Amino acid sequence: MYLSKLLLRTYKNISSDEKSINAQLLIRGGFVDQLMSWIYTLLPLGMRVMKKIENIIREEMNSVWANEIYMPALQPKSNWEQTGRWEWMDNLFKFTSFYSKIEYALWPTHEEVVTPLIKKFIESYKDLPQVVYQFQSKFRDEKRAKSGVLRWREFLMKDCYSFHANQMDLDTYYETQKEAYIRIFNKIGIGDKTFLTYASGGTFSKYSHEFQTVCEAGEDTIYYLEEKNIAFNDEIIHDSEVRKEFDLDNQNLTVLKTVEVGNIFKLNTKFSEPFHVVYKDNTGEENIVYMWCYGIWVGRLMGTVIEAYHDEKWIIWPEAIAPFKYVIIGLWDEWSEQAKKVYKSLLDKWVEVALDDRDQSFWFKMKDADLIWYPYKIIVSDKTLAQGENIVEVVARSSGNTQFIDFTTLS
Amino acid sequence: MYLSKLLLRTYKNISSDEKSINAQLLIRGGFVDQLMSWIYTLLPLGMRVMKKIENIIREEMNSVWANEIYMPALQPKSNWEQTGRWEWMDNLFKFTSFYSKIEYALWPTHEEVVTPLIKKFIESYKDLPQVVYQFQSKFRDEKRAKSGVLRWREFLMKDCYSFHANQMDLDTYYETQKEAYIRIFNKIGIGDKTFLTYASGGTFSKYSHEFQTVCEAGEDTIYYLEEKNIAFNDEIIHDSEVRKEFDLDNQNLTVLKTVEVGNIFKLNTKFSEPFHVVYKDNTGEENIVYMWCYGIWVGRLMGTVIEAYHDEKWIIWPEAIAPFKYVIIGLWDEWSEQAKKVYKSLLDKWVEVALDDRDQSFWFKMKDADLIWYPYKIIVSDKTLAQGENIVEVVARSSGNTQFIDFTTLS
Repeated sequence: MYLSKLLLRTYKNISSDEKSINAQLLIRGGFVDQLMSWIYTLLPLGMRVMKKIENIIREEMNSVWANEIYMPALQPKSNWEQTGRWEWMDNLFKFTSFYSKIEYALWPTHEEVVTPLIKKFIESYKDLPQVVYQFQSKFRDEKRAKSGVLRWREFLMKDCYSFHANQMDLDTYYETQKEAYIRIFNKIGIGDKTFLTYASGGTFSKYSHEFQTVCEAGEDTIYYLEEKNIAFNDEIIHDSEVRKEFDLDNQNLTVLKTVEVGNIFKLNTKFSEPFHVVYKDNTGEENIVYMWCYGIWVGRLMGTVIEAYHDEKWIIWPEAIAPFKYVIIGLWDEWSEQAKKVYKSLLDKWVEVALDDRDQSFWFKMKDADLIWYPYKIIVSDKTLAQGENIVEVVARSSGNTQFIDFTTLS
Repeated sequence: MYLSKLLLRTYKNISSDEKSINAQLLIRGGFVDQLMSWIYTLLPLGMRVMKKIENIIREEMNSVWANEIYMPALQPKSNWEQTGRWEWMDNLFKFTSFYSKIEYALWPTHEEVVTPLIKKFIESYKDLPQVVYQFQSKFRDEKRAKSGVLRWREFLMKDCYSFHANQMDLDTYYETQKEAYIRIFNKIGIGDKTFLTYASGGTFSKYSHEFQTVCEAGEDTIYYLEEKNIAFNDEIIHDSEVRKEFDLDNQNLTVLKTVEVGNIFKLNTKFSEPFHVVYKDNTGEENIVYMWCYGIWVGRLMGTVIEAYHDEKWIIWPEAIAPFKYVIIGLWDEWSEQAKKVYKSLLDKWVEVALDDRDQSFWFKMKDADLIWYPYKIIVSDKTLAQGENIVEVVARSSGNTQFIDFTTLS
């Protein structure tokens, strides 16, 4: 990517009402633009980060045999009356068609669509399990949305739903998904700060599970049990049954501020019953189908990474989701031919690289590179060329380590 | 892809109120599921086709230096009052936040967001041109939505906006975009039936341009001038000025039924004026910025391809957007090992291939393959193995031609 062709503008300071660090840094680095409170446009750099997070999640969902689909955000009232959730759910944007007078809402969750959908694919036990997921912009009429990117009114979510013949199959598959979730957070680079957290399970099961990432800005509180590498949220930590089950009175728990980046709910038969989703077992008998659902807040993840890893002034992207791996900066214009040669060499190897060919000073480009946070800066100058035709200076952003390297060996 | 793991069910007939051929065939082939009138879920096969169309468009947009961004669908009333379009536009879903009492709409177009956004990136002539685009689910409160997939209430659209220093630069860039559009429709496989069509330009220019694809189900009518390979829509064909300009009274025009799959509007200063988007030229003088916008109806394209190319019973996908290139079918179970070998060989070469490992008969699988329309069926049987260890039968779907081929040579 030639930076002269990229829609990019960074800001030293922003005069906005943004209080949250992640939104401030995302705006300053040219990743997002604020349209109004808690509604943002993703700029090209922000798109790149989001796509990388999305692709990591997609890869892992596909690896546990989940099928990608896309369900409508616009949903009619009728399906939701069947489960009684039309009146019950708050945070919904509801409206009526001017022409047809049909009542709609924009739904942040899809049980009322996915359950009757999957019902069409299930006749016998041979048709189970079924697992589907989607990436979708969700809409939420937020009462309070104080943490910038952490709570958008419109945000990308991955929601996944699985359907099983019985509790046992559901429990086995849950372990597979749990492992996929752990791989996702590890690959993104927040695995060391993201903990499986026991939460209240609602009507149909004892527990649900949340994935909570530790950061100062977090609005949630978890109680971390290091020995077992699990945590408990504050809904259930005072529950005497829970305390007994995990022997919590005799354990050391660490209290941490966190953001919820994912959750897993055991729905059991909560939705398969009202929609009568059943299958015939191998004796021909009809049985009810069991469900589980798995969410990841993709948009919120981007903000959470920043909240968890930034320092006083800068975003610190994990390499896997940084917008580019390298940026190439020439000390003077006369080295621009050499810079282009390095650029082409890396591009030919499918390396993600940006060439800063803008009509700006060296130091402006270096500052910009720090703000955007490329994992590596490649500097081309008389000093590097003096060391050999193919030699460049590579500066690692996080350690500050500098090396003179033959650029043809980079990957 | 193992078909046993794919969410897939085809239907011989559908008992639905679907009148349109494209929706019928998409439902029968397991590409989409209907949630309610003109609102559909994309199933895995439908997702694959849509992603292929999307990627062809993305590649061509990137090739003309357009930057991919994502603007909110949820937009506040305030920006739209500035251009007077809040009351003026019909087809909008409008609603009020329960908590904040802010009035929103879901916008099918983004001039009121993109214009003040790009304003922030423009100071001098050096910052021009700027081009951005997005893929986004749009929502429309349709009065009539009679052609199934052709008019969804919720649909994916690519919208692109360019900003220029003057008319001349805008006109030059328009030619670049026009060429990109032609490449897009050619790559998708509908180039021979898609015509650049002159339409009314609105307040700010004489003409706008539509890309119209010929098919029986089309709701538009165009008048095609073969000699120049352009067409005129029925808004302007009777205009005496137009007739004179193109000497239409002395030309042979063919009347055709069509679907609009793309359009290009010259906005000139219609939006840059109310938002005061200006730049300083090289003498330091302030000048107004010129705009153009470019849309493609991605969802509608999928339906249009089917309407334009199906025969009596089947979808006919152009190879570039078929969900898979090959399907492998074994005549008996005993050849399943050989089928897996062929599958692995193709997968290793990144070829898009499906292995039909479902617990179904050979003829069921062959029928399904016809309905889904894989460009090539690979058949593994005693007959093929008798001809050599690596020999398979390859049947081209469109011609019916059969060849015995060494599978290691396939790509």
